[in-house]
Amino acid sequence: MTKKAVVLLSGGLDSAVALYLARAEGYGCLCVIFDYGQRHKKEIGSAKKIARAAGCPYRLIKLDFAHKGSSLLDRKIKISKATRTRESANSGTIPDTYVPARNIVFLSFALSLAEAISAQAIFIGAHAQDYSGYPDCRPEFYRAFRRAAAAGTRSGSQKKAILVKTPLINKSKAGIISLGVRLGVPFGSTWSCYQGGEAPCGRCDSCYFRAKGFKEAGLKDPLG
Amino acid sequence: MTKKAVVLLSGGLDSAVALYLARAEGYGCLCVIFDYGQRHKKEIGSAKKIARAAGCPYRLIKLDFAHKGSSLLDRKIKISKATRTRESANSGTIPDTYVPARNIVFLSFALSLAEAISAQAIFIGAHAQDYSGYPDCRPEFYRAFRRAAAAGTRSGSQKKAILVKTPLINKSKAGIISLGVRLGVPFGSTWSCYQGGEAPCGRCDSCYFRAKGFKEAGLKDPLG
Repeated sequence: MTKKAVVLLSGGLDSAVALYLARAEGYGCLCVIFDYGQRHKKEIGSAKKIARAAGCPYRLIKLDFAHKGSSLLDRKIKISKATRTRESANSGTIPDTYVPARNIVFLSFALSLAEAISAQAIFIGAHAQDYSGYPDCRPEFYRAFRRAAAAGTRSGSQKKAILVKTPLINKSKAGIISLGVRLGVPFGSTWSCYQGGEAPCGRCDSCYFRAKGFKEAGLKDPLG
Repeated sequence: MTKKAVVLLSGGLDSAVALYLARAEGYGCLCVIFDYGQRHKKEIGSAKKIARAAGCPYRLIKLDFAHKGSSLLDRKIKISKATRTRESANSGTIPDTYVPARNIVFLSFALSLAEAISAQAIFIGAHAQDYSGYPDCRPEFYRAFRRAAAAGTRSGSQKKAILVKTPLINKSKAGIISLGVRLGVPFGSTWSCYQGGEAPCGRCDSCYFRAKGFKEAGLKDPLG
């Protein structure tokens, strides 16, 4: 029997690499794409394209984040220009694009879905290098979440805990991009910019780290 | 400034008592009611009534649990007749009404909402006596979830972790009912039966524990 995984797919490049990695590890993958009112809704279309390119089915799940609390959800708040470096990201400041408890909600939902379809693993492309300093991207969060997931599910209480896999957690953006190239990830179909306009804004955190990653990997971003 | 709490309200009696407790502790409460495709949708109407009786606002949140994996969500699966005692609940078997990772999903969402509105606490009426043996009702799950919530949120990483309060966790059903009576909980407005018919079925786990609780508390259930 093929092993199964639920893969969180945002439309950005990290989760695309996570999907291709899961596939390369022999998992039959079901992608979950969340529509949670993100300003850059455009990433949803990218996520669908990536799932199709990988030959994997997906579920698009609407989540009601009407409570907002983030510039990524609330157009009344301006998204800050990137001023971040790895040092500032590690300094403990958290930018306005932080969405309250987003990855906990996403992972919990993926865990429920994974248990319902008897999947053995969840893949998430989170990483804590060249990132915005979001607390829910750090290794200590994933360690704690794994324990909660094991304690709070049937599978976990029967000693068959669903694996919460974060294969990119310690990689640099350049390392993730290089890995993706080797795996054949269609980076031209990914979308990173928080603004979600016609072309990437080139100013937000997400554009900043993407450009830095391609540069350090010595590669040209197909999005230009 | 009044302290604020997000209270998970199902329409059953435990969460109603948790709400009245939070209110008695001086919290301004925002109730969250989930419509997740539960068979006993009737409990949603009960939850609204209880919030109104307590004078607290509520949000009704739709969650897409189309993946089901539970007799509580899938009408093709028959809900088992209660055969449970405290001993069987503690034996490690988990009934078909278990919904995969439900409380993790509910709590995570409540955490996001709490952080967005700057609430200090979440209240959940979970308890692990006179219960169905669901893993996500046990104290060890809540201990683990608190650590994940602290590690994965802005508030937690800034040493202002949102409290995840489980004031009923070690109480018996009779103890919860007696406490609710003292707090003025309108038990006639609560709904427990999993079947969600005109009258309680009297056969499911939820009816069984409710009847046992009222009997042991020496009280008459207003639902008859």
